[in-house]
Amino acid sequence: MAATGWPGCANSLKGVILDMCGVLYDSGGEGGDGVAISGSIGAVEKLKASDLQLRFCTNETQATRETFVAKLQRLGFDISVSEVFPPAPAAVAVLKERGLRPHLLVHEGLLPEFDSVDKNNPNCVIIGDAAENFSYQNLNEAFRVLIDLEKPVLLSLGQGRYYKETDGLKLDVGVYMKALEYACDLKGEVIGKPSSMFFQSVLNDMGLQPHEVLMIGDDLLSDVGGAQQCGMKGVQVRTGKYSGTLHCRRMASITAGLSKRTRGAPCNRGGAVTQKVNDGVNFGGLRRHRSRGGGGGADKWSSSSSSSPDTWPTFTAASHVTVLLREKAPFVSQSWEGGRSLG
Amino acid sequence: MAATGWPGCANSLKGVILDMCGVLYDSGGEGGDGVAISGSIGAVEKLKASDLQLRFCTNETQATRETFVAKLQRLGFDISVSEVFPPAPAAVAVLKERGLRPHLLVHEGLLPEFDSVDKNNPNCVIIGDAAENFSYQNLNEAFRVLIDLEKPVLLSLGQGRYYKETDGLKLDVGVYMKALEYACDLKGEVIGKPSSMFFQSVLNDMGLQPHEVLMIGDDLLSDVGGAQQCGMKGVQVRTGKYSGTLHCRRMASITAGLSKRTRGAPCNRGGAVTQKVNDGVNFGGLRRHRSRGGGGGADKWSSSSSSSPDTWPTFTAASHVTVLLREKAPFVSQSWEGGRSLG
Repeated sequence: MAATGWPGCANSLKGVILDMCGVLYDSGGEGGDGVAISGSIGAVEKLKASDLQLRFCTNETQATRETFVAKLQRLGFDISVSEVFPPAPAAVAVLKERGLRPHLLVHEGLLPEFDSVDKNNPNCVIIGDAAENFSYQNLNEAFRVLIDLEKPVLLSLGQGRYYKETDGLKLDVGVYMKALEYACDLKGEVIGKPSSMFFQSVLNDMGLQPHEVLMIGDDLLSDVGGAQQCGMKGVQVRTGKYSGTLHCRRMASITAGLSKRTRGAPCNRGGAVTQKVNDGVNFGGLRRHRSRGGGGGADKWSSSSSSSPDTWPTFTAASHVTVLLREKAPFVSQSWEGGRSLG
Repeated sequence: MAATGWPGCANSLKGVILDMCGVLYDSGGEGGDGVAISGSIGAVEKLKASDLQLRFCTNETQATRETFVAKLQRLGFDISVSEVFPPAPAAVAVLKERGLRPHLLVHEGLLPEFDSVDKNNPNCVIIGDAAENFSYQNLNEAFRVLIDLEKPVLLSLGQGRYYKETDGLKLDVGVYMKALEYACDLKGEVIGKPSSMFFQSVLNDMGLQPHEVLMIGDDLLSDVGGAQQCGMKGVQVRTGKYSGTLHCRRMASITAGLSKRTRGAPCNRGGAVTQKVNDGVNFGGLRRHRSRGGGGGADKWSSSSSSSPDTWPTFTAASHVTVLLREKAPFVSQSWEGGRSLG
């Protein structure tokens, strides 16, 4: 019988997909490059040194892929453009396939990604994380394009609620997708996480099956939920938007929709690992192991028996996850500034 | 048996509540006063000359009640402050009753309405039709207040999708309510139309029962739907946001939720009359009479038999409604620029 708990389940893993903002770095700050999250540069190094395949899957839509990866490299990450999957190139493919001409409400840094696309006489609207460009005037302009279309099409580069920058939480594109959906009484199409089609394109690039891959992110819906929907395992770290007791409560209520799918699901059909400030609370049908003790590492966590709920560890940051993957790669535990210790 | 169709149903009416923007005037334009909709000044005059009680119920939240009424008076309307019911005074009452201290995301013209309210250390957020104040920065600020609250409370002064100004359609407060609801995973409370409590406060002022009152507006959800929910009859006019074939299609899909309630409902439990570009299409369970002929007026419409669907007229503007109320008041048919003729 296949292992349903941790770390037995980790043995079947052949690849890891990492979310980026909130897992590897926090965006914002002076200069705009943001800051690397402690331990994350080393975590990427160690994953690359292991026998696990590694890809990066982001809903970053404030810059072209080249500009974005250059920023990560400046922060110290060993990442190349071909390893990174953002929504904009996927959106361009959709536009060309369906003969769509977009009205763009995106960050100016992303505009070059759409250079090859016909934008005359628009028959759809694309929104990305436009940040300050989400003015009343710009949102109204996008609304008027949609409301005047015979068959309005809204493509959203993600559906995140918010993300964390160095100076605090910021509203993400999903909030404005919901705004336009309500204004025009339509349903937007999400390109990017948590779209299964988007995750599948990454799996195709890795040449792996969903159950062989672990998705690690800080967003319970876009990362963990999307991975589960696709048949992968999903891990939420406590970095990034996962910060502070009150945000945690918000996320707890958001998980309601995830629980049904995960409850009792075997490990290779996707399992959620989430973090709570209150130990032992079950988010996704997978419970934290309650035993406590000194030291740090995976061996404080054991897989459950077949008749009991899955028991998965609590992760505090990407660096911790790699620690817990040590059965696949000999990693060393790393502390994480601001994180919570295991156990 | 009580009449279920028009005009028989009109005989039981003792009062009329008029929506304002889109029914009496279109907002915007140079000077900011907007323009009176043709025939609407006379319609108000004639209603006031009849034995029907008249009140004005608006979700206007860009100005204080005094400033707003002064604008209407400049446009030529015989309206006094005591006859007008906007959401802000109702919101102030709610704040004081529940001990809430608001963070305000509203139009600067509305701020004086909240002068008497303690706004220190906010424990709720109030949003109104803030228009240009709905910047990314301001929405983010409201979001941060909510996400940091133990028990976040969002009060929205209306839930409209959009309204019409002289230069086109504009996003309304409901769109931003939905945005914050999604961002914070909460449900906002609507103060203003279509809240039954809000309509009831107007009925209390009139001293009438719901079935004795007709609500006339251009918004199918806030005006017609809200009136029905409260037990009133609701009429949607073709002025204001009801303009153009495509907008009409949007509204058609929005009515799905209204149909069940209205279908087969007796007249005195609330009935919807809506307008379609395509004759004979049934929006609210009430069908347009298909007979055609010359001339204009109510006598082209007849009430249905008890076994057939209610037959209600199509209204093109507030002035037409008053025409059709001629059994209560001897009105004269008026043409309406841009409107559609009856029949």
